[in-house]
Amino acid sequence: MPEPRLLIDEDLRAGAEIALDEAQARHVGTVLRLDVGDALRPFNARDGEWRAKINAKSKRGMTMVVEALLREARATPDLDLLFAPVKRHATDLIVEKATELGVRRVRPVITQRTIAETVRVDRLEAIAREAAEQTERFDAPEITEATTLAKALDGWDAARPLIYADESGDESGKAWGGEQGRAEPIAQALRTFSLAEKVASEREPDEGRSNAQAPDQLNAPHPLTPSPQGRGGKLALLVGPEGGFTPEERRMLRTIRHVIPVSLGPRILRAETAVIAALSVIQSVWGDWRGA
Amino acid sequence: MPEPRLLIDEDLRAGAEIALDEAQARHVGTVLRLDVGDALRPFNARDGEWRAKINAKSKRGMTMVVEALLREARATPDLDLLFAPVKRHATDLIVEKATELGVRRVRPVITQRTIAETVRVDRLEAIAREAAEQTERFDAPEITEATTLAKALDGWDAARPLIYADESGDESGKAWGGEQGRAEPIAQALRTFSLAEKVASEREPDEGRSNAQAPDQLNAPHPLTPSPQGRGGKLALLVGPEGGFTPEERRMLRTIRHVIPVSLGPRILRAETAVIAALSVIQSVWGDWRGA
Repeated sequence: MPEPRLLIDEDLRAGAEIALDEAQARHVGTVLRLDVGDALRPFNARDGEWRAKINAKSKRGMTMVVEALLREARATPDLDLLFAPVKRHATDLIVEKATELGVRRVRPVITQRTIAETVRVDRLEAIAREAAEQTERFDAPEITEATTLAKALDGWDAARPLIYADESGDESGKAWGGEQGRAEPIAQALRTFSLAEKVASEREPDEGRSNAQAPDQLNAPHPLTPSPQGRGGKLALLVGPEGGFTPEERRMLRTIRHVIPVSLGPRILRAETAVIAALSVIQSVWGDWRGA
Repeated sequence: MPEPRLLIDEDLRAGAEIALDEAQARHVGTVLRLDVGDALRPFNARDGEWRAKINAKSKRGMTMVVEALLREARATPDLDLLFAPVKRHATDLIVEKATELGVRRVRPVITQRTIAETVRVDRLEAIAREAAEQTERFDAPEITEATTLAKALDGWDAARPLIYADESGDESGKAWGGEQGRAEPIAQALRTFSLAEKVASEREPDEGRSNAQAPDQLNAPHPLTPSPQGRGGKLALLVGPEGGFTPEERRMLRTIRHVIPVSLGPRILRAETAVIAALSVIQSVWGDWRGA
């Protein structure tokens, strides 16, 4: 078994002696079952992952001595997850899996059909930290306070394309909105978007345009810059609640400059399944699952 | 809210009166809270999905009358999931999500590093049926009895390429097996495999070859026939336990004729996350998420 990992906010460098606070010491002693002389791997997003040893223990805490660098830090793709809070157990699962699947920010958003349960950010942060330790990443995702979808979309960063899972068509009165205005399958939509941009970018420069422009310029393709290895791509995924988005929300989403509605196949997925599935395809087609 | 769905093994046709057994009646009355006069949607893989109404209720059961066809049945992709049983909660999650993600058969396999807990097939069948009702598919996946990996691979159907999630390299003594013999990223591996086959199939006919042949012919590319819309493609995914496969198991896997080791990115995934993630990418690249 490799030594257990511990996300540590303090600076990590050879020879540093770091005091664990009470909660950390309890975690290390009781959950990880480490004692004086045992090794562990403290890490953070600035300093990377180090080998360290527990060198003292008291009733109040523990200290460890940092020894040697094991791995340089590597950035998580600049990928935001916006999701409508669901039942507590499913929300916990979403945060844990989003951490494993390499999301940088987790943003709970309240949509019109969200069965609003309260979101406890501190609780979700604890889940994210523990998942980050298990999954061998260098940071824990940032968890933001819940906000409404309208507020989250207001002033949206035009350089961050927004993918949203959309099960519905545009024909009111028909079951599931009929066939009109259906989203493309997710892998195809991601590829189409990248390809269309290539053509568009050769035609006109993309600089200095804002969200306030003629309707025919809205939703113009945008570079879906691949994420990893520091090329600076940004992306966001939005997954709604079980009932999907309202027609009003779908109209609102489509006014965002670079928005990509996607479909996740012919079966109805639970909200947490849709999050995990879409993130997996995104990392495969756009993100850091594409290999070095 | 659309009417609740109920997987019914009996033949469904207009006018048929169907008696629900005690367990079904309890589910319909207590969980779905339906009473005489309420509508529901019985379905199965042969007859499709129908509208029906509860027409009688007693202490011993319920009956419903089938009224009209709502949707013709549609086949689930011919995709098998082989997975190493994990803790009970994670195993339940794997079966539920595999159902949502369109797996036709779920096969628990005991690998050398499997923390063998018993697998209760009847329990997993109940989970799969309920998930099938929720996810709007027409069948529930078949759940087979647990078997060893060696037995599962013995006499493997040469027409069913086997994808397995492989986090390890081939260099013994190095952490995670070093860099040699690393699997390709999953989306890339699926595309490479399809492409290589196209070239190979133009060179030599593929008929009538068995698993027993010269080593240099092993692992020759094979048509990764796309699944849906009746083209008859077959595929299987194998995901091991948390500790991955042993070197011996990896050698054994590589003797299978059409085997594709794949990587699921730079982070370590829990077994259940690996299953859900790999299935999502497979349905996107090969299966029925590719659109009509």
